[in-house]
Amino acid sequence: MTTIQDIADRLGISKGTVSKALNGASDVSETLRKQVFDTAVEMGYSRLHRLKSNAKKLCVIIENMEYEDPHQFGYDIIMGFRQMAEPAGFIVEVVPVTDKFQKETPFDVFMLQNDYVGAFVLGFSLYEVWMKDFETTRTPVVLYDNYIPANLSIASVGIDNNEGMTLAVNHLKNLGHRKIGYLSTALGSHIMQVRYHAFFQAMKKNGLKADSSCSGASYYITQCIEKHLPRLLNMGITAIICSHDQIANAAIVQCQQLGYRVPKDISIIGFDDLPICAYTSPPMTTIRQNRVELGKCGFYAMSSILNQVSIGTILLHAQLIVRNSTGAAAEATKS
Amino acid sequence: MTTIQDIADRLGISKGTVSKALNGASDVSETLRKQVFDTAVEMGYSRLHRLKSNAKKLCVIIENMEYEDPHQFGYDIIMGFRQMAEPAGFIVEVVPVTDKFQKETPFDVFMLQNDYVGAFVLGFSLYEVWMKDFETTRTPVVLYDNYIPANLSIASVGIDNNEGMTLAVNHLKNLGHRKIGYLSTALGSHIMQVRYHAFFQAMKKNGLKADSSCSGASYYITQCIEKHLPRLLNMGITAIICSHDQIANAAIVQCQQLGYRVPKDISIIGFDDLPICAYTSPPMTTIRQNRVELGKCGFYAMSSILNQVSIGTILLHAQLIVRNSTGAAAEATKS
Repeated sequence: MTTIQDIADRLGISKGTVSKALNGASDVSETLRKQVFDTAVEMGYSRLHRLKSNAKKLCVIIENMEYEDPHQFGYDIIMGFRQMAEPAGFIVEVVPVTDKFQKETPFDVFMLQNDYVGAFVLGFSLYEVWMKDFETTRTPVVLYDNYIPANLSIASVGIDNNEGMTLAVNHLKNLGHRKIGYLSTALGSHIMQVRYHAFFQAMKKNGLKADSSCSGASYYITQCIEKHLPRLLNMGITAIICSHDQIANAAIVQCQQLGYRVPKDISIIGFDDLPICAYTSPPMTTIRQNRVELGKCGFYAMSSILNQVSIGTILLHAQLIVRNSTGAAAEATKS
Repeated sequence: MTTIQDIADRLGISKGTVSKALNGASDVSETLRKQVFDTAVEMGYSRLHRLKSNAKKLCVIIENMEYEDPHQFGYDIIMGFRQMAEPAGFIVEVVPVTDKFQKETPFDVFMLQNDYVGAFVLGFSLYEVWMKDFETTRTPVVLYDNYIPANLSIASVGIDNNEGMTLAVNHLKNLGHRKIGYLSTALGSHIMQVRYHAFFQAMKKNGLKADSSCSGASYYITQCIEKHLPRLLNMGITAIICSHDQIANAAIVQCQQLGYRVPKDISIIGFDDLPICAYTSPPMTTIRQNRVELGKCGFYAMSSILNQVSIGTILLHAQLIVRNSTGAAAEATKS
């Protein structure tokens, strides 16, 4: 069990300072106080939610997303959510759900039975059973990367995908690229649809031509790479933006196997900035969604609904992370 | 000067309870505590920001928007912002600025000279001098109804205009309307552009036809009404959505002068839900943007930037307020 001493050791400060920070003493700076709380949550300091009386329970409902290990996509999102929620006096429980479970138990019943005052929902596809329940629920729900309009109890959080795609296209345009392609997994999720449209919008905004023939989407990554990548390369495309990092990684490998050099012959950009991006060969240029901050956004949205401020959408800034999978366009270097 | 007794009288509770609420005593419910703080801010209880030590200063920078009287557009936005900021320990100062002032004093200099840690910016057009400064500033700025991408110190707040237009078009479609027009003031502001595009998107989503001939935009309201309204009526349009309530009010009056009954011959919807909407003849159906909540969103966004969570956009839910300026489509009643 984590003690105050453990937190003090990790941060290299005294036990007394940790204690003062946790109790809100006025001679501890706001920055240090936040650092202590973040670390306390991260290390599982269990007395945290008992600092405030009448702790209420929130749940993180999760499907189709791994979260148990630090390198997995959901881990940091949940961490960020807890880093805001627990110091504010909430208990956070993570609940993986299946399709079967959703069919058997209506969402509102599940929430009532477990005394949850709100749910942060991760990884849901458009076809999840509870997506229908969310349209009419009066229980506060925050959806990550999903959107349900016209219900004041529902808010959405995610990154600004339009901003992300614009950053990616601008970056390539500045490198001299004009013919840019797009690869995606199946468009059956809200977020893949949003990114797909954002790509074409960003191209248009930059005065670059792109029609649907410049893009390819398939259910499986391997399918997408085999079916669409050679077609795009034959079209004379010099750069490809991918809907997420795994596709981008597969595209880099496949391009190299086909004899194309990355980025000398073709530039490739991912999306998400998973830990893997620093270790692909070459290291991958990508659009970062900061997952800890996404979790914190989730709590901002939850807190607003609980306080009767009907926030519908919170979008985090996207950030371009330039590594080595992008370079000057082949034509541009020749000319 | 407002005293604790004044707050107690307004809320019909004891002075002791007000005092306990202001000092965060645990036997006062969260709901009552918020009510006390909201009222304290509203009544100008001046010791509020001294409840926390080291009070920091925020400013509300305002142009092109009236805010001094309760019926004016900016009043409630600023009130909502203060209702969140002051109990959190901030001092809020309202600073009207002119074009001349912006030209003379760069934004960052102004903020530094006055010790402001952040600015909430209301009423700015796209051509305001400081809009350029915002692109590169490192001072936290929250823009109402404006958008600047790719600067982590800048966030935008507003309502979800796409949701609002969808609610308006759905409402009219359910009443049997198929031919719907759109009237707007000049498209020289970010928000007028957003609403204009949102109208066409909402029509498309509902499977209804609309091209630019169904819309009209002019700089002045009278100009817009004189130039475009007769044209739309001659096209056989049975309903008009307006970019804001003042245009809608002018459209109602003009339709009536031309011999059209509202809503029997033509339905009209406004946007904003200004206090006037309840008193037009007939009372106006409109899309509400809750201005107190918008102000609170402004502080959520500010607080996130100050806490290094790079929120880029917060959108409040739009709400359809049905009054009497909309009714069944003329064709639908005949059939």
